[in-house]
Amino acid sequence: MAAPETAVNLSAKFALFEDRWSPKIVGQVNDMHVKAVKVEGEFVWHSHADTDELFLVHRGRLAIDLPKGRRIELGPGEFFVVPRGLEHRPVAEEACEILLLEPAGVVNTGDAVDTDLTAEDEWI
Amino acid sequence: MAAPETAVNLSAKFALFEDRWSPKIVGQVNDMHVKAVKVEGEFVWHSHADTDELFLVHRGRLAIDLPKGRRIELGPGEFFVVPRGLEHRPVAEEACEILLLEPAGVVNTGDAVDTDLTAEDEWI
Repeated sequence: MAAPETAVNLSAKFALFEDRWSPKIVGQVNDMHVKAVKVEGEFVWHSHADTDELFLVHRGRLAIDLPKGRRIELGPGEFFVVPRGLEHRPVAEEACEILLLEPAGVVNTGDAVDTDLTAEDEWI
Repeated sequence: MAAPETAVNLSAKFALFEDRWSPKIVGQVNDMHVKAVKVEGEFVWHSHADTDELFLVHRGRLAIDLPKGRRIELGPGEFFVVPRGLEHRPVAEEACEILLLEPAGVVNTGDAVDTDLTAEDEWI
């Protein structure tokens, strides 16, 4: 599926799926994908050597754990950009809807190995 | 000012300024800027030959006029990506807060000439 030439309603997109930690592509700007993800619980610590990654909360609350015990807390309408190369771990106590912005082809688990959380991105 | 290493609250950013059609940079992901813009009234018809441009409505309603009388209507939580090279004209009947996503250095009025709407982007 190619990028849509229509308006995209985020809530409608989030209503299309329930699986956690499995990014769905909902838009593209040049080489960057806009991805909708439902998250819940703790993800795996990982980093992306070659790219920054933007997390924008649509609904719910997200924490992003960083090295040295630092934690970024995000609510709806708040975003954080994880710089390239920085280890991070997203955590959501309750189900949370977020947008990711990152280049097409980025693997969700980055450099993490021994994880079954790696997901194949798909357009919805 | 460089990219912040803290969470960014969009409503707090929009509270910092009132000028219309003057994008403020609030985040950066690789070479892409996230910009907050307050719009009201009709902008100028223009296009960007080298880049797509994402419009996401934070508050209010935005229309994006396209060639052949086509119009995209967006409310909060809705976005549209204007493909590179496509003529477009943003229109907001009432004050509207939007996010733009586009490469650093993109000029807001694109290829339009004879306009005083061209703005210098600044970080806030």
